[in-house]
Order: sequence, then C-alpha cells, then structure tokens
Amino acid sequence: MSRKQWTTKRAEKQARVASVAHLADGKVLPTAHIVEALEHLIKPNDRVVLEGNNQKQADFLARMLEKVNPESVHDLHMIMPSVSLPSHMNIFEKGIASKLDFAFAGPQSVRVAQMLEDGLLEIGAIHTYIELYARLYADLIPNVALVCGFKADQYGNLYTGASTEDTPALVEAPAFKDGLVIAQVNEIVTQTEELDRVDIPGDWVDFVVQADQAFYIEPLFTRDPRLIKDTHILMAMMAIKGIYAKHGVQTLNHGIGFNTAAIELLLPTYGEQLGLKGKICKHWTLNPHPTLIPAIESGWVETVHSFGGELGMEKYAAERSDVFFTGPDGSMRSNRTMCQLAGQYAADMFIGSTLQMDPEGNSSTVTHGRLAGFGGAPNMGHDPRGRRHASDAWLNMITDEEKQHDIVKGRKLVVQSVETYQDGATSTFVDQLDAVDVAKKAGMATAPVMIYGDDVTHLLTEEGIAYLYMAKDMEERKALICAVAGVSPFGQRVTQAQIKAFRDAGKVATPEDLGIKRSDANRSLLAAKSVADLVKWSDGLYEPPAKFRSW
Amino acid sequence: MSRKQWTTKRAEKQARVASVAHLADGKVLPTAHIVEALEHLIKPNDRVVLEGNNQKQADFLARMLEKVNPESVHDLHMIMPSVSLPSHMNIFEKGIASKLDFAFAGPQSVRVAQMLEDGLLEIGAIHTYIELYARLYADLIPNVALVCGFKADQYGNLYTGASTEDTPALVEAPAFKDGLVIAQVNEIVTQTEELDRVDIPGDWVDFVVQADQAFYIEPLFTRDPRLIKDTHILMAMMAIKGIYAKHGVQTLNHGIGFNTAAIELLLPTYGEQLGLKGKICKHWTLNPHPTLIPAIESGWVETVHSFGGELGMEKYAAERSDVFFTGPDGSMRSNRTMCQLAGQYAADMFIGSTLQMDPEGNSSTVTHGRLAGFGGAPNMGHDPRGRRHASDAWLNMITDEEKQHDIVKGRKLVVQSVETYQDGATSTFVDQLDAVDVAKKAGMATAPVMIYGDDVTHLLTEEGIAYLYMAKDMEERKALICAVAGVSPFGQRVTQAQIKAFRDAGKVATPEDLGIKRSDANRSLLAAKSVADLVKWSDGLYEPPAKFRSW
Repeated sequence: MSRKQWTTKRAEKQARVASVAHLADGKVLPTAHIVEALEHLIKPNDRVVLEGNNQKQADFLARMLEKVNPESVHDLHMIMPSVSLPSHMNIFEKGIASKLDFAFAGPQSVRVAQMLEDGLLEIGAIHTYIELYARLYADLIPNVALVCGFKADQYGNLYTGASTEDTPALVEAPAFKDGLVIAQVNEIVTQTEELDRVDIPGDWVDFVVQADQAFYIEPLFTRDPRLIKDTHILMAMMAIKGIYAKHGVQTLNHGIGFNTAAIELLLPTYGEQLGLKGKICKHWTLNPHPTLIPAIESGWVETVHSFGGELGMEKYAAERSDVFFTGPDGSMRSNRTMCQLAGQYAADMFIGSTLQMDPEGNSSTVTHGRLAGFGGAPNMGHDPRGRRHASDAWLNMITDEEKQHDIVKGRKLVVQSVETYQDGATSTFVDQLDAVDVAKKAGMATAPVMIYGDDVTHLLTEEGIAYLYMAKDMEERKALICAVAGVSPFGQRVTQAQIKAFRDAGKVATPEDLGIKRSDANRSLLAAKSVADLVKWSDGLYEPPAKFRSW
Repeated sequence: MSRKQWTTKRAEKQARVASVAHLADGKVLPTAHIVEALEHLIKPNDRVVLEGNNQKQADFLARMLEKVNPESVHDLHMIMPSVSLPSHMNIFEKGIASKLDFAFAGPQSVRVAQMLEDGLLEIGAIHTYIELYARLYADLIPNVALVCGFKADQYGNLYTGASTEDTPALVEAPAFKDGLVIAQVNEIVTQTEELDRVDIPGDWVDFVVQADQAFYIEPLFTRDPRLIKDTHILMAMMAIKGIYAKHGVQTLNHGIGFNTAAIELLLPTYGEQLGLKGKICKHWTLNPHPTLIPAIESGWVETVHSFGGELGMEKYAAERSDVFFTGPDGSMRSNRTMCQLAGQYAADMFIGSTLQMDPEGNSSTVTHGRLAGFGGAPNMGHDPRGRRHASDAWLNMITDEEKQHDIVKGRKLVVQSVETYQDGATSTFVDQLDAVDVAKKAGMATAPVMIYGDDVTHLLTEEGIAYLYMAKDMEERKALICAVAGVSPFGQRVTQAQIKAFRDAGKVATPEDLGIKRSDANRSLLAAKSVADLVKWSDGLYEPPAKFRSW
C-alpha cells in the first residue's frame, strides 16, 4: 500500500560505517585517525550524546571532537548528562555544536551561562538525569553516542569498570535505533575472556578506539573529614535524632555535602549511643562515599547501590561485596538509571542542600552567572506520586488531619539541609530566586527550580528543624521556614511567640527540644577525623587519590 | 579492624552453583533434571524473582518450581511483575511460596484476592512496574531470578526476542549482588555467532535450560477493530479534537483499551480531515499495537518505543525500523524500564481507563474480589514532579491564575477515558472505591488507588470532556466530574445551569461545543474495520495470531 522507504536510518548507518572502512580494523578505529573517522561518522545537525558523566568522562573523544573541521561537522545538538570539561564547551565556541541538552554543569556552569548570554549556545533544557535518558527513547533519539569504558575486546564488548554510571542508558537508545555507538577505552584486548566482565554487549557497539591516555575520573564524592565543622555536626545530630530516628528512615539517599558526610560519620558514635543501629539507615542509594566506611564496618549498612564509582574505593567495594553491588569478576558495578529509580521509588528519604531558598521553600542552585543544572536532585527530591508500596517512614508523613480520609497516602521525606548563611554575608533565604531572573533573560519557559517548595517536608538549619509537612497551609509553611531562618531577614518575620507555639505543636524542633546540647556538637564525635582514619577503618582497602593524602 | 565476613553472599552463591555440578554441563542445565536443580539452587525464605511479564512468561520454570518438594523449598518470597499463570498461584497453595510482591495480576486477580482472604498468601505490596524494579536494588534484592529468553548460547548469552520487556531490570540486580540467574530459552545454540543478537551478556547469567516447549506469549495489545463501537468513536473524536489538538500533544502513551484503539484508527481519517498530521502524536511509548499500523503507514508516527513486543507484529516492526526500535539483527527490541521512564518523564500525556472513579476523581481497578494491580498506570498516570523540560502541551496546562506567579511549572496531561456505565447497570462513578474496603479487610496500610484524583487533568466520557486541571478548588473539581457523568447518580448532582456555566467557561466541552456531530461518530471513520484490514495496511507484514483471524 505504501511506497515510502521505512529503513532509511538503517541504510544511513550502514553508509556511515562503510565510509570508515579504510580506517577501521573491524570494529577497532586507530587512535591516530580518530578525528578523520569522526568527520566521516558524524554529520551536521546530528544529535550526539557525549558521555560527560558525573565522574567518568569520554574525555579523549571530547578532545578529538573539538578537532574536527567545522566546515564538515557543525551545528551538532549535544546531549550531555554532565558538562564538566573545557572541551565540552570548546566545541560550541568552534561552531561544531550549537545546541545543548544537559543535566548537570558543575565546573563549566559559569561558562555555560556566559556562552548562552553571548549567543554561542542554545539550551534545549536542563534536566534531571533520568529525564534526559528518557527523552533518548522518545523525542531526542541520538544519531551518535560517544561513550567511555575501561576495556574493550575486538568485538566491541565493553567492560566499563566500577563507574558503569550512565553508559548503558546512553548506549541502548542509539544501538537499537540505527545510531552509531563509539566507545573510547583505556585498553583493547583481543578475546572476550580477557575482559573482567561484559557490561555492554559488543552487538551494541559499532566502534572502539584506544584513548591516548586513561580516561579522566573525578573523586567527586570524597569528603575530607578534617573539613567538617561543628555546625555540620550539630545539624547531623539533629538530622539523626529529629528526622531519621523520629520517622524510622530505612532506605535513603545521601548527596555530596559535608552535612551528610557528618551524618555518615556520626552513625557509629552518636547513632550508636542512641541505640539506633539496625533500626535506621539500612539500605542506601549513593556513590561509594569514603565517609560511609566506618558505618559499614560497624555493621550499620546492609546494602549500597551506586550511581557511579568513586576513585580509590574500588578495592574496598570489591572486598565488601555483601554490601556493594559487584560483578562476577568481583569489581563494583554501578548504574545511574537503576540507582536513580531506587532513589526515586524505593527510598524513604532524600536529603540535599541548595544555594537559595525562597519564602515558599522553592530552591535552586542556578544563580546569576552560574547555570549549574541539578543532576539527580529533582528526581529524588520529590514525592513520587506513582509509588504504591508503604514503609514506616512513608506512612509517618500522613498527618492526623489526613488520616480522617478514606483515600490517604504517605509521602517521601524530602529534607533540605542548609546553613542560614552561605558564607559570612550571603543569606540562603531570598525573596526571589535568581533562577526567576535567569529564566527571563535566557528566554526559558519556566524558572529552573531544583526542588519545588511543596515537595520539601523538612527544612534543617543550624537553628533547628521545621517540619514543613505538618504545615496546615501556605502561610504556616512560610512561617515555619522563617522559624528556623536564624538571624537572616527571614528570621525577623516571625515573633518569638510564634516560634514558641510551633515548638509546642511539634512543628519546629530546636537542638534543645531534641535533647541535644550544642556543646556536645564537636569533632570528637566523628568516627573518623581524617582521610587517614578512613583508610584505617577500611583495613587499608580504601586507596585515596593523592590530593586527599597528607601522609 | 573488623573480623566480620564480608563476602558471605558470594560464598553462598558459589556453594549453590557447586551443588548442581553433577547436573550441569557448564552453564547448561538439563531439561529433565531442572526440578532437582531448582531444589539445590533455591533455599527456604529466598527472595525469588519469577518473570511473569506482561506478555513473555518464564512459564516452564514456573511449572517446574511448582514441582519442587515443599519440604526442602518453602516460604519463598516471590517477586513477580505480572501474576498471569495458574502455576504462579499454585506455588502458594503448595506452600512453596508464602509472600508476594507484584505489579499486575490480570487473569489471576480473582485468585489472588481469594487466597489472600484464605490466608494462603501474604501480600508485600502492589507496585507500579518500575517501583518494583527499583526495590530490587534496595530493600528487595533477590536471591534468585527465573527469567525467560528466546535463545541462549552455551556461555549464557541471551537473545530475548522482541519482548525484551523486564528481563534486563530483573537480571541485573541478582547478577551484580551474588544472586543466581536462571534463564529458560526455547533453544540453546553452541556459539555466540549463532544468536541473533545479545540482549543480556552471558556474564550475568548462571544457568540456562531449554524449556520443554516454547514460552507462552500473550497478544495482550491486539484489539480487533470489529469490536469498536460508535461510542468509542465519539469519544475518540472528542479526544483528538478537544485534548490532543487543543493542547498540542506530541509525545504520548496509549494503553490497551478500545477507546485508544479507536483514536489510533481515527488519526488517518478524522485527524487528517482536521489537518493535524505532523502537528500531534509524533512520538509514542507503547507496545506495537496492530491498530497503530494505519497511522504509521500514513506517516503520522515518527517513533515508537515499546514496553514489550506483540505477537504477530515482529516482521512489521522489523521492516519499519525507522519507526520502531530494532537491533543490529533487525528484530525489535523493547525495554519496559526505559519505556516506563519515557512514559513518565518524556511524555506529554497519559490516557487510561478505570473501573471505578470516586467523587474526587480517584480511580482504581481493584474491586471486591479482584486484586488486579496496576502495571504501569501509576507511574505514567501522574505528574512527574522531577520533570524540568518544557513542551507545548506541558506548558499549556498552566492556568491563567498560575501564570501570575514567578515560580510556575507545566504539568503532564493525565486523561481518564471512561464510559459512564461499565455495562448496562454498573455506574463507573461511585461514592467510595471498593479499594477502600478491600484495603481494610486485607489489612493494607493504604487503599490501593490506581490514579489519584488530583493527578487527573481531563475526564473524558461519552458526554464530553471535563477539563479538571482548570478547576479552581476541590468543590469545582467534583462538580466538573459530575458534569460529564451523564445519567448516572453523579450526573444528577449538577444542574443544567451549572453545566452551561462550565461550558461557557471552557471547563467542560460537549461534542457540540467541539463541533462534533454525534451522527458522524460511526464505524465508517475507522481507517481499518477488521484485522484483515490491518494486515492489508501492513503490506502483509502483520501476522495476526490465529484467534484474530476470521479468514
């Protein structure tokens, strides 16, 4: 009935593969000719996934993409989970790429903002990680994916190493939609048996290339205990007693901050004193944080599933396979998609931090001049309304008023943990998020909010905890935020009498209300006070990167 | 520092593998001795994933599990995405299993309810699919997974066939947490090259066994156009004009119903008349519905990503690879995890149906005596608050009132499409969902609601469309529901004057308001009126199962 061609993408793929036949040895592309190969394999206006991951980077391919001739390869639409390297932005300056969809832009956030203002860059959208992966299967199907592994065999089978991270999600879409998958690896072996294990089947990979140097991996989740301050410790004590224990949090996510590192290091000391072992914090979705080692060694932690790996933690994770996910080869396996799903749907609680919070509790890390992106926070920092299983903590969020109804549901704990001042002078609490203005200037459809206020159940500051889920309306929610805003301008919007009433009603708790002496909150409570202590706790299995070694 | 054993699960796995050394030839278990092998490999109280998928079933392994000696294998905690086969329940009757976590129980829903009442079964929870997968990486890590593929090689590499479905998500958790993965296949080949492609690497699979017969696959998503009624067609016309076109829906999900089948078959006729081609319905997340063939052939559909395959659609999907996701071998590839993610985070709209709806718009398919489960509906039928990218349809949900605020977000369209009566006598609209009572009797923590009322943006009945997202408060939401509830008791709770006011305000639209003549709504509008028509549209590529053939 139809005369239309229905396999044009397949034919296009075959033509592109054939165009590098003179360069390739089977699936292996020569390191020295990769720029020429990319010029054949990538066409103008292609959608190109470039694996900038949270830790693992396809940095060789990024540098080589920067070298292609912009006359033949231009106006690429780049899809990058994490924009982290200078080359990620250089390709826009050179006209090789023109549009960007991303999830996180830590180190490059200033440059992203600048180039957007200079018109060198069009932003598709800022996403949360799995939202970006999701679009790879719908309206953002890529033509090419440039990804990164540890080793490959000649058939294209990939061993990603402990930082499997986003690679499976990034590869599957092009592999099964007639796109091209090109993987850089540190080493190419001949036979499959020489690989530690297969993380991505060779069928899914069109070309592999040995990088000119081992890929860059950043120890992004290592926090040196020496930098943990007494304020972090006070807040950690409140979190453990006034949130984790109060609600019975079993499955949880921790992010990158010193606040949560302090909590991890207080479980074997303060948590133990409170008799909480085996009662809270059993199942974790987080990167293998070195600061979690003492809690693991003390028997607090049943399982850890990870978004990515962490440099130096490879041997420790392998030797603690009862806790960590590891492969048949013994080495760790991570998977950001499944870990984000676990963080979204299986976790009782998300705890995070922010740079700014507005009167209604909306927060963002996008500030003037910094287009940071949010990574996993929007996905894990909201109440997943598709959740249907109950847990103690989830049920504990149902208020007495709600219990009167036939149809009632629990909710996820979404904790924002912030100090009232970002530094000596800048209040965390602002009347309007910079994100509102940034959106207007950049012509974004909506302001880039990281976590919406009505998803936040708890606000933790050095002043105390505001139990926002108990607020009876928006006015009370606003007042509860002010009640823990300390000496900031927000703090002056509530009276002492109001704060007293909130404390009496159990809607605000100060350290005193929780039976925590501020003078107890000091570094002596930390189970490890230095990276050297963490190494000791790990039986020497943790091998910190040089920059964290002082010995 | 620690003297604890940290690799006990790895050792336990090795011991179990060793215990069948006398039976296995490498990774291959003999069909005739599989019951004995299972008795060695599975221990009492194990958490066991049994691949009951929406379509593909590990039915051989289910039947063999039913034959193990309950003296040696008992009290298993079963994790089954879909409870579909008699053997799935027989294992509970025989005492082999005692606890069940699941997502969907279509054909077995009555038996699940009965056995729960008889105390033969403890229900962990009813989940949405990816919520269940998520827990496999946190608090429900399985000891054993029994899964299903099309072919395997002797190294355990699996080709799943077009219905890859849940297999990757179910396998990854045990494979990387020292669990056992046992796959039944229709055929075992010697060399990897003999496989069509590798969907699951052999490293992740401990044992393969050839089933005594090819696995059962159900054509669950095939709707015979002959069964589409004029009411379906009227509702489909309203959906296309009053929802899809009005809001500019580009990326969407369709379920299993005749209502949505009618919409699919009206795109090339009614949709074409309205000049909508290329403007709506470009990207789809759904199984390869045969009723979508005319829309595909007419050039409406850019891409389809699928949860699973559909019997008879294999050749068609392979020959339409510009539209469907296919592997390097040319055959279709599905993936429920990624498709559910796309349906959650990338889709503008979810449209579904229900058996009961209460005054606030809460709905459930759990009724007295039927514990059905919800499959993917809770995940796709809610507004994903982690979404941060905009689309026209998403932005179109922002009301004028909301536009006054600095912080504003779009939302997903969640459409409930129901006839006011389920059959001649039973109203869809009820004052209390049966689910409330079922929950009380079964001791569930919360009532099993499929979609929460405040997530529903549109209610479509044969009477018209209620634009619930425009309701200014709960009272108005309730009245809007009643306004399209027809002659049911709910319909009598609003006056004609109220309905008129809603119509004038654009909060309710009748067919007349939409310029749709009821007399036009008849089967002559269907692009295909029979399965034979669908085969013709497909150029003979669609091969319907025997039960759908009348010729």
